[in-house]
Amino acid sequence: MAAAFTSLTETRAYQELILLARHPYDLTGKQALQADNRLERYVCRTELLDLHYATERVDDQVLTLLQELADELRVVEQFQMMRRGAVLNRIDGFASENRQVLHTACRDLFSPEPVEPLATGQAKKELAKLRTFLGKIDSGELCNQKEARFDTLIHVGIGGSDLGPRCMFEALRAYALPGRQVHFIANVDPDDGARVLSGVNLARTLVCIVSKSGTTLETLTNEKLVCRALVEAGLDPAKHCIAVTGEKSPLDDPAKYLESFYMDDYIGGRFSSTSMVGAVMLGFALGMDRVMDFLQGASDIDRLAEEKNIRRNMPLLLALIGVWNHNFLGYPTLAVLPYSQALHRFPAHLQQCDMESNGKSIDRQGRAVTSRTGPIIWGEPGTNGQHAFYQLLHQGTEIVPAEFIGFKQSQMAIDLLVQETTSQQKLLANLLAQVVAMATGQSSDNPNRNFPGNRPSCLLLAEKLTPRVMGALLAAYEAKIVFQGFIWNINSFDQEGVQLGKVLAGRFLQALKDPSGSGENFEGVFLNQL
Amino acid sequence: MAAAFTSLTETRAYQELILLARHPYDLTGKQALQADNRLERYVCRTELLDLHYATERVDDQVLTLLQELADELRVVEQFQMMRRGAVLNRIDGFASENRQVLHTACRDLFSPEPVEPLATGQAKKELAKLRTFLGKIDSGELCNQKEARFDTLIHVGIGGSDLGPRCMFEALRAYALPGRQVHFIANVDPDDGARVLSGVNLARTLVCIVSKSGTTLETLTNEKLVCRALVEAGLDPAKHCIAVTGEKSPLDDPAKYLESFYMDDYIGGRFSSTSMVGAVMLGFALGMDRVMDFLQGASDIDRLAEEKNIRRNMPLLLALIGVWNHNFLGYPTLAVLPYSQALHRFPAHLQQCDMESNGKSIDRQGRAVTSRTGPIIWGEPGTNGQHAFYQLLHQGTEIVPAEFIGFKQSQMAIDLLVQETTSQQKLLANLLAQVVAMATGQSSDNPNRNFPGNRPSCLLLAEKLTPRVMGALLAAYEAKIVFQGFIWNINSFDQEGVQLGKVLAGRFLQALKDPSGSGENFEGVFLNQL
Repeated sequence: MAAAFTSLTETRAYQELILLARHPYDLTGKQALQADNRLERYVCRTELLDLHYATERVDDQVLTLLQELADELRVVEQFQMMRRGAVLNRIDGFASENRQVLHTACRDLFSPEPVEPLATGQAKKELAKLRTFLGKIDSGELCNQKEARFDTLIHVGIGGSDLGPRCMFEALRAYALPGRQVHFIANVDPDDGARVLSGVNLARTLVCIVSKSGTTLETLTNEKLVCRALVEAGLDPAKHCIAVTGEKSPLDDPAKYLESFYMDDYIGGRFSSTSMVGAVMLGFALGMDRVMDFLQGASDIDRLAEEKNIRRNMPLLLALIGVWNHNFLGYPTLAVLPYSQALHRFPAHLQQCDMESNGKSIDRQGRAVTSRTGPIIWGEPGTNGQHAFYQLLHQGTEIVPAEFIGFKQSQMAIDLLVQETTSQQKLLANLLAQVVAMATGQSSDNPNRNFPGNRPSCLLLAEKLTPRVMGALLAAYEAKIVFQGFIWNINSFDQEGVQLGKVLAGRFLQALKDPSGSGENFEGVFLNQL
Repeated sequence: MAAAFTSLTETRAYQELILLARHPYDLTGKQALQADNRLERYVCRTELLDLHYATERVDDQVLTLLQELADELRVVEQFQMMRRGAVLNRIDGFASENRQVLHTACRDLFSPEPVEPLATGQAKKELAKLRTFLGKIDSGELCNQKEARFDTLIHVGIGGSDLGPRCMFEALRAYALPGRQVHFIANVDPDDGARVLSGVNLARTLVCIVSKSGTTLETLTNEKLVCRALVEAGLDPAKHCIAVTGEKSPLDDPAKYLESFYMDDYIGGRFSSTSMVGAVMLGFALGMDRVMDFLQGASDIDRLAEEKNIRRNMPLLLALIGVWNHNFLGYPTLAVLPYSQALHRFPAHLQQCDMESNGKSIDRQGRAVTSRTGPIIWGEPGTNGQHAFYQLLHQGTEIVPAEFIGFKQSQMAIDLLVQETTSQQKLLANLLAQVVAMATGQSSDNPNRNFPGNRPSCLLLAEKLTPRVMGALLAAYEAKIVFQGFIWNINSFDQEGVQLGKVLAGRFLQALKDPSGSGENFEGVFLNQL
């Protein structure tokens, strides 16, 4: 089965796209954005989220070839296989994780027949456990040894167990239950934990330790830091701690945790936001109804992503436009620019989800890749960024494609009129202005006021950042990343690139532990220079 | 004077460096890091901060040519001219801001004879005003109309009036005076302000409005949002608000502000952290003594940056290595990776400071540049990033030079032993491991476990992130950015690239205000599609 997968450069469409890339659509021409009803036609509408792509350097010919490319590479079939449990986390002929990839099963809860009933059954079981657990918290049946109710949660994890949940919490905290607070500790830097612990009432604090393997050094270290603080406050850690982990991991221990919620090894850390990794924290913060809304938004997109027509399959279209910008137009990075302060950690989450998935050099047959793989992802919220790095976006020598994200309404609806417009209107006007400015540019007699334009971007637009829209947005990017991995014929689901650092860190740690014995080693020599 | 400036590509050293870049130093060779005492020799030590650069792809020959390059372009002389008041914010023969560049004068407070006495005199006057003002806050002489003491400050600004101060606060909050809190509002997204306002006791809150021109739309809008909240809480805004602004700007109004602190137009927003823009907030949070420590650290580096020998001038060496990686080895981005959670907003600040300064395409004579200018800057703290995007750093097809930043001690010294080492030791071990792993790589029979190495990086290392070290770190990057601008012969001090977006935003705002009248305009047509 896997041997049938081919790579981007082996397709018929590839050579034609190379030729078209020499003269991509000119966005700076007169009426270039209005021509052929472009603004109207180049929109991919979904129930919750529309993708406007008239400001990308594509035309009908390019889109037709991108469709051919997707068809030739059978990327939608691969996505369908993934959702149904194919072992796609592997490299043919070499040792690899050799696992299924089933994060989508966590949210396939809304149709009578889930496509992978076993994994979805597991997810339902854990959700039911969570609902019961949170019910006890809400009713006060479960409280600490001094009968204090829990109103705060410290989420302890790192990487996939941190960035997604942190981003989702920030995005949706406007919907938090009254009085509920969430804090995060990730970094092994002791100041990270110290700062969080200095600002909470530990008696009212649940601590959620998140590690699939139950062996992540940073997380176990921070768990000990938090438990020491609990003990110093006269509290019993076993009455405050819960865990999210693999079944039978060291964290699956009723003597130490009020409850352990499970995640299976077919859920990769960076795709785990809709598993218990995100759900426990979100359930505590927002309540289960909103968790279900969030999962439903993700599920909607998963089903949409099985559509073969790229003009209707929004995540696939986003993936293909990304490939066009990266592999054919040659741009090495992608800026993700949400016009929503609530999404301020979304670029950081995508950095992980995208760059850890697709920052690879070996294809699924163990050969060196023949094209560039994943781009560098970065970004900050607008309008803040406009007063910062947008100078380079408009006039720098590095060209940066952008994905703008916006909403018609604010979350909290606390707004006011200044100079006859609301803040939300100003936000939206700035967003649209940037999309257009990057595309069209503007000429001037003063060379320093000249804008070359032709800097491609697109706009993901929704009515409002609700839990359901957040689920859809997350799943759209997850599917985009997976599609791009299929196009590059790489394994997007492993992370061998993090191993060398772990090994070398162990050696340096040994040298730090025993400075006398290591003067002869490289590590000792290096340490002596510091 | 200005006509004498030349560009990188016009130098004699340029052609030779092009040749050397074909075969840069191979970091993956056996003992490549130990050869010629490289680990020992490739360190630039300063009083507070050492730059270790043995893991860059440079050798003595490259360094000699980089010295020649710096000499040919007279970059140190230009830096000296800048500090002494030369009008360097200009483009010859074209309309431009035409200003001096004197952020360094704000901190030239520690030698008997400041190099630009007028500007430093102004800075001293404002610092004295601030000291008096904060004394009244501390003593309780100045409190709100209901006699509540101020313990919270909301800093309202955007871009240069936000990112620097926010970063400095996060970096140094471990040193905050007991009970003092600071919050920031920047985004015109109304949810940004709403969230901050929902979490403070307004009766005890000072509000600092920061805008050099006094006309920044986002900031004035957020000022009104905060003032409305004050009025709704029965409080008088004039008894809660202060301003940082240009003298005689609309914010310089004793009827509306308890005090207005001044900044002159020779201080660019992105270089304003050591002016009143940063000092008012830091003074409130940390006290004046620590503000002076912070300024002293910056001043130390400014003086060091006048050294002509690149092996001793740390910011210049950092700048030249950056040019080597960007212009000669061809890498489009730079990752800044602090191993310190307190520095989590430092990459965002540098994104602004660097990319807004050097994201330019026109030289100081108004000609198109003949080389690439500023790179894309991005990054997140380690060890968090190790569990996220480092996969791409080690095994991706995009090569990313990195600047690591680390400290031997934590700020709060709340630590514990787990498996015989402290968290701080684990943090440091991971940092060193990454520097080495990127450089040396590692081969494996499993192609997916192969690390190509030769990914250049350097390490900025200090004892501890104190106010003085933060000042030095900030000034080092500011000087680096200025030096690179001199090397590319661009004006690093203007930001014409932000203007087009402003004009277009105005048009979209008009169309949003009056939807009926705009169906014929481009803006109306676009809005109709949304």
